[in-house]
Amino acid sequence: MIDEISLISEISSLFEGGKGSNVSLGIGDDCAAIVIDSNSEMVITTDTITEGVHFNHKWTRMVDVGYKSVVVSVSDVAAMGGSAKHILLSINGPPTLTKSHIRQYLKGFKQACDKYEVTLIGGNYSNSPADLSFTMTVLGEITKCSRIERKGASPEDIIYITGAPGESALGLSILNSRKNKLTAAERRLINRHKRPTPRLEWGKLLANNNLVSAMIDVSDGIALDLKRLTDASHVSALIHLNHFPLSRDTVKSFDCMGNRLWRLILTGGEDYELLFTANKKNSMKIEKLIKSGLIEAAAIGKIIPKGPDPKFFLTSGKELKMHQYGWLHNNK
Amino acid sequence: MIDEISLISEISSLFEGGKGSNVSLGIGDDCAAIVIDSNSEMVITTDTITEGVHFNHKWTRMVDVGYKSVVVSVSDVAAMGGSAKHILLSINGPPTLTKSHIRQYLKGFKQACDKYEVTLIGGNYSNSPADLSFTMTVLGEITKCSRIERKGASPEDIIYITGAPGESALGLSILNSRKNKLTAAERRLINRHKRPTPRLEWGKLLANNNLVSAMIDVSDGIALDLKRLTDASHVSALIHLNHFPLSRDTVKSFDCMGNRLWRLILTGGEDYELLFTANKKNSMKIEKLIKSGLIEAAAIGKIIPKGPDPKFFLTSGKELKMHQYGWLHNNK
Repeated sequence: MIDEISLISEISSLFEGGKGSNVSLGIGDDCAAIVIDSNSEMVITTDTITEGVHFNHKWTRMVDVGYKSVVVSVSDVAAMGGSAKHILLSINGPPTLTKSHIRQYLKGFKQACDKYEVTLIGGNYSNSPADLSFTMTVLGEITKCSRIERKGASPEDIIYITGAPGESALGLSILNSRKNKLTAAERRLINRHKRPTPRLEWGKLLANNNLVSAMIDVSDGIALDLKRLTDASHVSALIHLNHFPLSRDTVKSFDCMGNRLWRLILTGGEDYELLFTANKKNSMKIEKLIKSGLIEAAAIGKIIPKGPDPKFFLTSGKELKMHQYGWLHNNK
Repeated sequence: MIDEISLISEISSLFEGGKGSNVSLGIGDDCAAIVIDSNSEMVITTDTITEGVHFNHKWTRMVDVGYKSVVVSVSDVAAMGGSAKHILLSINGPPTLTKSHIRQYLKGFKQACDKYEVTLIGGNYSNSPADLSFTMTVLGEITKCSRIERKGASPEDIIYITGAPGESALGLSILNSRKNKLTAAERRLINRHKRPTPRLEWGKLLANNNLVSAMIDVSDGIALDLKRLTDASHVSALIHLNHFPLSRDTVKSFDCMGNRLWRLILTGGEDYELLFTANKKNSMKIEKLIKSGLIEAAAIGKIIPKGPDPKFFLTSGKELKMHQYGWLHNNK
């Protein structure tokens, strides 16, 4: 099995980080950026979702897969502080794929395009021997001085997370349990998994006001994405889990799951929330935005100088040990 | 099995052809185009190659697959008359994929990027259950007034094809025969299949001099790609096969294959030659470019008013009947 992180680092080194004419940001961030003129840049990102890895259409409707395809790609543009504008879609379809599946997929894809004002401008259809996969490429716009990368965090910066992370992973675990009767809360959590929200408006608000030193979207779990941000910034982090902005439905789940729930929240992924850092002065402004309801976010920890991987502390003060790629183990 | 042509037409209708802010060319051509400023546009295209459909790594080295990945995508930019600038690569890898396979692939990918001056700026790695596939997205530049689409052909326009089409298909048939001892000619034909040439310089020369009314690159076979061009232009075509620019190695193959060879030449695909049309006045200028050696191309027929699908005539004057999607049958 290929290790994605070491592969990308190898590719970046082979291709000199993507340096080239008009490239202002190459390989390794949520998006690449190309200079358009003295004021603006184009950000661009590509992502693939595959049946059996990212979804299973036995218990996820194709209309939701289509919707989510747009969200996962647009979320990378949100993480740069940009506006998503155009999208391309490559469909790789096995012989079992029917036109009805594709129509359902496209219906959801269009709902999300309409909602987030993204225009489908092209794509490709190709037969595949066995797997069904969708590759999306999104182009976005950004003003040059407002682009946010993963690499800007400094010691003493405050770490924030938007929304209510963990809901997508909880929704997936409910979906996987294949319960017959679902409560309203369970249905809401499942919907958070099937139709997450890309935080475009919050990303732009933070970027346009130059409030943020580094930012990433949470696609693979907070633990891993925080590690990506701190590695890129050459720093580390301390996270206090008692400061986490958990929803009431998530908090309820502690009753039956205990600390196992943190495994889901920190490593489950697919939240598409924004994880970002700000210096103390800007964090005052961010707190004001939070209080005025312009952004939902919470301070969850702080950046410390480069050292071991980020550490996570429970309310008890005890450290929750993490595997280096973000998977919890040996914690009950 | 999904029919690609009707699917794309359905998608185009659902998404209103890709109309949107700054979109100057939407769904359905070799590339989409986005307005950059009053003089220039960005062209963008995406393509997927999958093992078991487009290549088989038992008899195609990964280094050649990597090289060809760049060519197939860059060729779409050539067909618009543009310059390829940036590329993104999404790899979907099954559990059997090794790092050594990927390293070989990337080696070839880089050789082609260096040769055609394209910069890899980003991408994605994702696990897949079974299939190995690569999706490339290429961004290119074009001056606004020189962009060439598929839809500009008019009756009486002359139809041209560049290079020596058919060599790729012949190379593939030799590869599939798994002969042990290959002649120098056979090795050359196999190389034309493994490492085709995107006609970037010729595309730009034609576009910058406004010599061409419509253009497409030949990826799926001349018959099918000609049908795409004539359908987009609402015209039809007559092709005289005795005017085809065949290489000496291709002509030799008639000895053992007879008219079956035309099946390969017209429908085999993967030539990545440019198929284009020009009015009579411009065709005089094109003939001069051909004579001066600035472009290799030959006039192979002419555009006629909209009617039945394009017709192909043998030297004998007899028509070679074509299936509507370009596959020859009932011809010996």
